[in-house]
Amino acid sequence: MKLSEISKLIGAEFSGEDKEISAMNTLVDASDSELSFIANSKYLKDVTNSHAAAIIVDEKSAHLVPSNSTALVVEHPYWEMARLSKEFAPEIEDKEAAEPEIGEGSFVAANAYIAKGAKIGSNCQIMPGVYVGSYVTVGDNTILYPNVVVYRDCHIGNNCIIHASTVIGSDGFGFASNRLGQHQKIYHNGNAVVEDDVEIGACTTIDRAVFGTTRIKKGARLDNLIQLAHNCEIGEGSVVAAQTGFAGSSIVGRNNVFGAQSGVAGHLSIAPFNTFAARSGVTKSIEESGKTFAGFPFMEHKLWLKIQAKLARLIK
Amino acid sequence: MKLSEISKLIGAEFSGEDKEISAMNTLVDASDSELSFIANSKYLKDVTNSHAAAIIVDEKSAHLVPSNSTALVVEHPYWEMARLSKEFAPEIEDKEAAEPEIGEGSFVAANAYIAKGAKIGSNCQIMPGVYVGSYVTVGDNTILYPNVVVYRDCHIGNNCIIHASTVIGSDGFGFASNRLGQHQKIYHNGNAVVEDDVEIGACTTIDRAVFGTTRIKKGARLDNLIQLAHNCEIGEGSVVAAQTGFAGSSIVGRNNVFGAQSGVAGHLSIAPFNTFAARSGVTKSIEESGKTFAGFPFMEHKLWLKIQAKLARLIK
Amino acid sequence: MKLSEISKLIGAEFSGEDKEISAMNTLVDASDSELSFIANSKYLKDVTNSHAAAIIVDEKSAHLVPSNSTALVVEHPYWEMARLSKEFAPEIEDKEAAEPEIGEGSFVAANAYIAKGAKIGSNCQIMPGVYVGSYVTVGDNTILYPNVVVYRDCHIGNNCIIHASTVIGSDGFGFASNRLGQHQKIYHNGNAVVEDDVEIGACTTIDRAVFGTTRIKKGARLDNLIQLAHNCEIGEGSVVAAQTGFAGSSIVGRNNVFGAQSGVAGHLSIAPFNTFAARSGVTKSIEESGKTFAGFPFMEHKLWLKIQAKLARLIK
Repeated sequence: MKLSEISKLIGAEFSGEDKEISAMNTLVDASDSELSFIANSKYLKDVTNSHAAAIIVDEKSAHLVPSNSTALVVEHPYWEMARLSKEFAPEIEDKEAAEPEIGEGSFVAANAYIAKGAKIGSNCQIMPGVYVGSYVTVGDNTILYPNVVVYRDCHIGNNCIIHASTVIGSDGFGFASNRLGQHQKIYHNGNAVVEDDVEIGACTTIDRAVFGTTRIKKGARLDNLIQLAHNCEIGEGSVVAAQTGFAGSSIVGRNNVFGAQSGVAGHLSIAPFNTFAARSGVTKSIEESGKTFAGFPFMEHKLWLKIQAKLARLIK
Repeated sequence: MKLSEISKLIGAEFSGEDKEISAMNTLVDASDSELSFIANSKYLKDVTNSHAAAIIVDEKSAHLVPSNSTALVVEHPYWEMARLSKEFAPEIEDKEAAEPEIGEGSFVAANAYIAKGAKIGSNCQIMPGVYVGSYVTVGDNTILYPNVVVYRDCHIGNNCIIHASTVIGSDGFGFASNRLGQHQKIYHNGNAVVEDDVEIGACTTIDRAVFGTTRIKKGARLDNLIQLAHNCEIGEGSVVAAQTGFAGSSIVGRNNVFGAQSGVAGHLSIAPFNTFAARSGVTKSIEESGKTFAGFPFMEHKLWLKIQAKLARLIK
Repeated sequence: MKLSEISKLIGAEFSGEDKEISAMNTLVDASDSELSFIANSKYLKDVTNSHAAAIIVDEKSAHLVPSNSTALVVEHPYWEMARLSKEFAPEIEDKEAAEPEIGEGSFVAANAYIAKGAKIGSNCQIMPGVYVGSYVTVGDNTILYPNVVVYRDCHIGNNCIIHASTVIGSDGFGFASNRLGQHQKIYHNGNAVVEDDVEIGACTTIDRAVFGTTRIKKGARLDNLIQLAHNCEIGEGSVVAAQTGFAGSSIVGRNNVFGAQSGVAGHLSIAPFNTFAARSGVTKSIEESGKTFAGFPFMEHKLWLKIQAKLARLIK
């Protein structure tokens, strides 16, 4: 899409050299053929070094846009970004893509659906009712149990087991809102990646990233009915028990263990090798390793035990 | 079904003019061709003005039944109502209905299933593995991602996006129980309606109403793994994050925002424009607007913060 | 598999008479053609009376193995048990089994999938997108709504209703872990059984047992989005509201009632006829009956109410 068309669409003034824009991205990750935006003051620090071809911005931040980038000035940058995200969203399925490739020794059930552009490795089992979207890749020796859904552009590694009815790559929960209480969908044009040796339970939902990738790293184990929101990362060998939820953009280091029905707030960073008791509500980033946490409000497990004892005495 | 047959089936005495009964309904909503019941003293106030053709009632409340209605006196009205609900339940699929209609420009995957009597609008995408039941209507420009299930008689509006494996219109969780600990299913002969411009995430469950309609109003956004029980209503533009649950018959006003893993008890009414922190457990109706709530036990968010601070001091 | 092959595979010394081993099992349940293991000191009490043909054990517990059984001594018994579990895992589907049998009056949708070896009773409705695995039996008059998945070897009784996208018999969440933070999957070669007159909601997950059976007993009612882990048992007529989770091996007696979003820890035993308020977090076994519990930390409901009142006063 041409920069001139974009500026017209969002009602921003534009003069200067026109350019083809390939995608939208964050200020940090945008290349010089990509479009970015400033919608939140906490990202202002990233403007100066951005390589974005153009940046959607409001009037008062326009002066921060570096000289290598075009400022597209609008009243509501986040709303306009959301509107534009639709323009960059690909078709749900690419019907022009090449016929799917199925590796040697792989079994694909008659009523599984493999979209064009998809590639299945060797010795896989793709059971009935599975949907594999365009440009999805599945490694070798991987099992997709009945009714698993993998949205387009997502990748599943080798030796993975994905249990029935799990959904990988559904859109993240993101939208811009205006003062009338209306919402503008942010199309999630990133993807989700499940690395090698991962097992995921039944009816678990892994959302795709808005930009970039939601990632489950090598050897991680996820149970049933888990929610992993857009742009999260679950570290190598981490273990997540059933009905746990992760809000958007949280990064979990390797070999963390989450008890059932836990919750992790958004934009947190969790160091490796920690344990979270069942029903933990993790509301802050964790820099230490080797500890056990619990509770909501969230605290170290030994403090939680002390508080329970103290409360018991106070109440008597 | 004839009133005489009904009375025979539940063992109630019946004399007087016979009548065809078309359905069961609440005391308030029953028309003069419908049957109602009194199973809970809190609904006694609704008896006097009921237009129901007949009312199932126990002996001690029989005198309240108005003269325009026939009293069917039984020992256990709720149990008998449950037994009768099955008689009024339609077939899961109506194989006699007209061939489904598919609007112009709509794509229906080869292995999606559209039951007889269903109507799909124009420019829709009905992906593989989707089930659309009898008499379901889907508006224009709506996307049903793979393996979405819409039970019979439910309606989906225009410009909706329903993500993979979500279920709309499954039976609500309702039954009568006796002293032996046995349960009698209450067939849910109502439906579920998703209005225009609604997006619903993956693996979310929207139960149909026992009578009437479970409703998600225009522009609302629901995330993944949400439970919406029978007869709830989610107001226009409301936003519900993942793994939240609503018990039966709760009415949520417009533009409420629920953080993830929240819960709302049954039969509550929530005024518009409130915010609920993640993991809120809403146990009472809310008449104010513009406030933020949190916690379980449930309270205003600022009080919750104060309590956390006070507890911290007490414990030291 | 021969005992000699097993010992070779796990690197245990073996001399003596060779024997065909049919399966793995617990110390208590293993027959004299089965293999067992000691991986946790709390099961040491079960060694002396075990009938197992052989027991995988570490050096320091080897002397406990009774004379009727062969000790296979390894450094990490649990890890080796996990490795071996794969050897005893059957194919996901048995393509050599007999053609499936469908009882009189049963309707099987064209795009449902019934694997070889399965048997469907009479007057059932098997809706589109359903998967029924090898050797599954379904009783009479049972409804499997669209996209229900029943893994191999599981059994569903008469007069059951299973709502859309529910998964029965997926693998439990079990694995051995080593000091490098790697995990070895424990194949779940048990099954799941749903007895007569059970109704299960939508998107609920019932895991199969590691050995033996995960069981939902006669007349129980489960709502939507529930997690029932491996080897649990839900008692006759028990009622479980939405989004509740049960960790592994918990045994729930008859006619218990669980409010929504409750959780039950693993290896507990709950006496009949108790009630658990919504969001209860059950962390200990319950021997009494007829009581109401609540909260997390978990307590009797009337104590919970007293504490809330006392806290309110303390805080003022």
